[in-house]
Amino acid sequence: MAPPGEGRDAALLPEFPRGPLDTYRARASFSWKELALFAEGEDMLRFKKTIYSALENDPLFARSPGAHLSLEKYRELNFLRCKRIFEYDFLSVGGMFENPLKVSTLTQCLGMYDWSLAAKYLLHTLVFGSAVFSSGSERHFAYIQKIFSMEIFGCFALTELSHGSNAKAIRTTAHYNPATEEFIIHSPDFEAAKFWIGNMGKTATHAVVFAQLYVPGGQCHGLHAFIIQIRDPKTLLPMPGVMVGDIGKKLGLNGLDNGFAVFHKVRVPRQSLLNRMGDITPEGTYVSPFKDARQRLGASLGSLSWGRVAIMGMAVANLKLAVSIAVRFSATRRQFGPTEDEEIPVLEYQTQQWRLLPYLAAAYALDHFSKSLFLDLVEFQRGLAAGDRSARQAELGREIHALASAGKSLASWTAQQGIQECREACGGHGYLAVNRLGVLRDDNDPNSTYEGDNNVLLQQTSNYLLGLLACRVQDGACFRSPLKSVDFLDSYPSILDQRFEVSSVADCLDSAVALAAYKWLVCYLLRETHEKLNQEKRSGSDDFEARNNCQLKDDAVALVDVIAPPDFVLGSPIGRADGELYKNLWGAVLQDSKVLERASWWPEFSVNKPVTGSLKSKL
Amino acid sequence: MAPPGEGRDAALLPEFPRGPLDTYRARASFSWKELALFAEGEDMLRFKKTIYSALENDPLFARSPGAHLSLEKYRELNFLRCKRIFEYDFLSVGGMFENPLKVSTLTQCLGMYDWSLAAKYLLHTLVFGSAVFSSGSERHFAYIQKIFSMEIFGCFALTELSHGSNAKAIRTTAHYNPATEEFIIHSPDFEAAKFWIGNMGKTATHAVVFAQLYVPGGQCHGLHAFIIQIRDPKTLLPMPGVMVGDIGKKLGLNGLDNGFAVFHKVRVPRQSLLNRMGDITPEGTYVSPFKDARQRLGASLGSLSWGRVAIMGMAVANLKLAVSIAVRFSATRRQFGPTEDEEIPVLEYQTQQWRLLPYLAAAYALDHFSKSLFLDLVEFQRGLAAGDRSARQAELGREIHALASAGKSLASWTAQQGIQECREACGGHGYLAVNRLGVLRDDNDPNSTYEGDNNVLLQQTSNYLLGLLACRVQDGACFRSPLKSVDFLDSYPSILDQRFEVSSVADCLDSAVALAAYKWLVCYLLRETHEKLNQEKRSGSDDFEARNNCQLKDDAVALVDVIAPPDFVLGSPIGRADGELYKNLWGAVLQDSKVLERASWWPEFSVNKPVTGSLKSKL
Repeated sequence: MAPPGEGRDAALLPEFPRGPLDTYRARASFSWKELALFAEGEDMLRFKKTIYSALENDPLFARSPGAHLSLEKYRELNFLRCKRIFEYDFLSVGGMFENPLKVSTLTQCLGMYDWSLAAKYLLHTLVFGSAVFSSGSERHFAYIQKIFSMEIFGCFALTELSHGSNAKAIRTTAHYNPATEEFIIHSPDFEAAKFWIGNMGKTATHAVVFAQLYVPGGQCHGLHAFIIQIRDPKTLLPMPGVMVGDIGKKLGLNGLDNGFAVFHKVRVPRQSLLNRMGDITPEGTYVSPFKDARQRLGASLGSLSWGRVAIMGMAVANLKLAVSIAVRFSATRRQFGPTEDEEIPVLEYQTQQWRLLPYLAAAYALDHFSKSLFLDLVEFQRGLAAGDRSARQAELGREIHALASAGKSLASWTAQQGIQECREACGGHGYLAVNRLGVLRDDNDPNSTYEGDNNVLLQQTSNYLLGLLACRVQDGACFRSPLKSVDFLDSYPSILDQRFEVSSVADCLDSAVALAAYKWLVCYLLRETHEKLNQEKRSGSDDFEARNNCQLKDDAVALVDVIAPPDFVLGSPIGRADGELYKNLWGAVLQDSKVLERASWWPEFSVNKPVTGSLKSKL
Repeated sequence: MAPPGEGRDAALLPEFPRGPLDTYRARASFSWKELALFAEGEDMLRFKKTIYSALENDPLFARSPGAHLSLEKYRELNFLRCKRIFEYDFLSVGGMFENPLKVSTLTQCLGMYDWSLAAKYLLHTLVFGSAVFSSGSERHFAYIQKIFSMEIFGCFALTELSHGSNAKAIRTTAHYNPATEEFIIHSPDFEAAKFWIGNMGKTATHAVVFAQLYVPGGQCHGLHAFIIQIRDPKTLLPMPGVMVGDIGKKLGLNGLDNGFAVFHKVRVPRQSLLNRMGDITPEGTYVSPFKDARQRLGASLGSLSWGRVAIMGMAVANLKLAVSIAVRFSATRRQFGPTEDEEIPVLEYQTQQWRLLPYLAAAYALDHFSKSLFLDLVEFQRGLAAGDRSARQAELGREIHALASAGKSLASWTAQQGIQECREACGGHGYLAVNRLGVLRDDNDPNSTYEGDNNVLLQQTSNYLLGLLACRVQDGACFRSPLKSVDFLDSYPSILDQRFEVSSVADCLDSAVALAAYKWLVCYLLRETHEKLNQEKRSGSDDFEARNNCQLKDDAVALVDVIAPPDFVLGSPIGRADGELYKNLWGAVLQDSKVLERASWWPEFSVNKPVTGSLKSKL
């Protein structure tokens, strides 16, 4: 490798300006350029530089800290930026297949700039696009070209006002009418309104809508996806029977328009059904390659691992930004010192190191984990595409699901806590909006909620492990998994016999010691959980209760009644004393300004279309 | 006690509307009305009801969730509301002395409505007002009347751009000139700008400014407080030599205008010195009732306990609001259930209970603790006012300082974590701005920073305990304190000999078991810290190093250089790669819009004065 700082490296990784950080940079035990090249590779560093430079040189992306954009202005700006990304066309569809990791890198580059932009772009191209591609069939592929030319704009509409985690209980219906060869899409009431749907608030013309499919005669075949036009692309006005609007301000990601939709007997052609998992004949007979609804749902929701792995990457990016800010601040902020006249950087204090350095380490460790899991998922997806129906492929799917569920929870929580610690470690200056730690906290926050609440996801991982343990106990099967993440559990009896015998603090610094302790802990928790679950089952609880044996809680509402101020002061629709959760929330959402109104910038979508790749020559 | 729900109680504590929460309310093991009366007392409940009703019935306080106020509009509205509080005059100065707990209750009622309002009102009346009252002398008392008629508006200016925690290192100077009998107030450079000062941004006409006092000949007598006019009350334009502006948007509390001020050789009369702790003769001789600068600083900063106890109350109020929202949501949100068709409230799930109920318990426990500590502080203050110079009084001051330092940290962190848990426990709906958990998180956040960073404060408490232990070890002195909070430590050797011998889970539910475990833990940590500190001292480290023995950190900046994106993308003045912390931050603050401009609503202060108590008859 050429000496860093010379030739091509100098252009790719220029020197930092000289200044107060020089002292620490000179003291580092390694070359940051060599580590950057080792960790990312020259090709990826160049790709990132191309994206970052394009944004920095384009006035549309100029940062204006003092502008304090209104919700509507921010959404307009975010839409214009999203359109501009199409014109730059940083990564062609071919390029995605060639080096899938670049999809993840593009996401993180856009997100490090502004997560509202990344979310808007990716919900349209990747989430909406791949739902059409992977759940639809050839008759739907014409949509793909319209997606990348922005002829249409899409969203993915699963959750409803009253249902998120329990997706099976979604209440929107799709009744098939053979006389007209149409589905009637209907929301039985406002609690079944599609809700929280990114891009639906102001922009989307089309939605992938999940609904319960009913055939003539009244039989329900469970949840299916339909592609439904919700707005006229020429005017951005809603289609007949569709009440579509914006759910309003969120804690973060406000460049993205999250929306709701209520369908009133909306008639759509039979071909709207995304029919890879199940189809209906013109006469109204249901046909599916899957045996039952449960298996079909599993297959159609299988793509959830993508979302979870993507979120890991988003959380890692946020953690990187936060520790970068806090470490540089701490290396230059001086406070107190050994004498009255001499103050030292706060990074020199043990407390500050204890607060920040574990998160710096976590940023590196989680970065590696999320990238390698992303590549495992690519391998799995290639197996799917190639029609691999081997036991290993199925086992790989389960293992990735378990790893992505736990990994998403770990990464999003670590980032959230890390950002908060960085905010506090920067003191008052960390609380100033211009320093960005607030935006990072607000934009990272939903990572613990969407694509599965973290607590619910952790249970999916523990179910996976408990299942493996049950096989081992009952059938003597080995712990073995394609990625080897559970292989160590095979020796769990001997691991549990291990005792902590390290005698000195110095020995504890050996990473093998910490690793052994973690292994012991996993084995211990797994055994305890397994035994407790069996005990509950033996004592007669059914499965549901066994996982949820209740205690202590009947007083909670009355205890809250004592400390809660009147509703007017509490000021929260979901916390009102009457408990009419959805009525209150729905009412508040509809009272917001311009909820149902078309965005003022609608011609920017309807008339001024982007020419994909038109700015590529400028890169 | 009359049966609850009848007669006067019915008016004071009316029934809740019937609805989905009825089931839980019926199942409660106690009467919420009896508990409310027991916990607060009828008088306090009535006081709260008066305040809440006034706000609810006044259109100026109407909540408009969809309004999305601009920074300037929010500040205007907050100022108008603050003025209105003077007109209601909920609590006279006499009333404060009669029942000091009402000050705390008023703060929490206003804060539960909006912390920006509470902060603006209290920074002016209590923080600025009591600084003038307790640090000044009779010649300053004329200001007090002007404060309560809003003839002037005040702020408390201690921290500077480059100094917060280390208040002794404040760099603003006050040179006395006997020829004109004036002080020259001067900021040597922008790093010494007063910064973060609440009310200074747009409103304050006067500031209590801390500066290093120099007498002719050049001797410095340390930090002193001066009352300085910074704006003309008739125009709200800055006084000559004062550059005063707004530091811009913060993560929360944006109704409050935090500001900065740079003084360029501003001449103020000799009488501007708040001279209770030290004075200067017309000829320039320094006189003080205190022996040295260190002792004087201690006395002048002694009032910090008030701020910390107030913050405890603020944090508790936020925790109450958050758990109220999350518990009511969880009791009405249904998701999953024992059968396909039946869904149960998420409050029934053990996970949800584990997440929320400890914070509900903490809200009650911390509420009691903060109120009792507030009353202890009142007792201490009365002793001070009465000139009590007993050993008990001094010891009480030290104990309260230690309790308030730890209590502020405990309460603010518990509230911050609790709010985040509530946000997540409410899923996506918790992320919707209208449901208020975001505002609570943002407004509670600075509680861990101002009036002393939590980590720094915890060290003050541990220093107190280590000091007591050293006395006990060296002199055989008993652990005894006026509030008895440390008395249990007297038997620390026998506590440390205790072993955990509880055999059943049921026994662990006995609170005595948890209490004994906590006592053991405190003794253990205290002994370990004491021994480690002695060991470090013996090994030759000086005091400063002993508390701060460094490790691992020299690589931190270079590790961050690898993962940080370019400055443009990172978008944080304090995190820029050149490390020019203050230049970058100062530049960013000055680039914000209307930083130095007078607020458009200035006549609302200068012309339309409130008549204190004019709306009292409406209560």
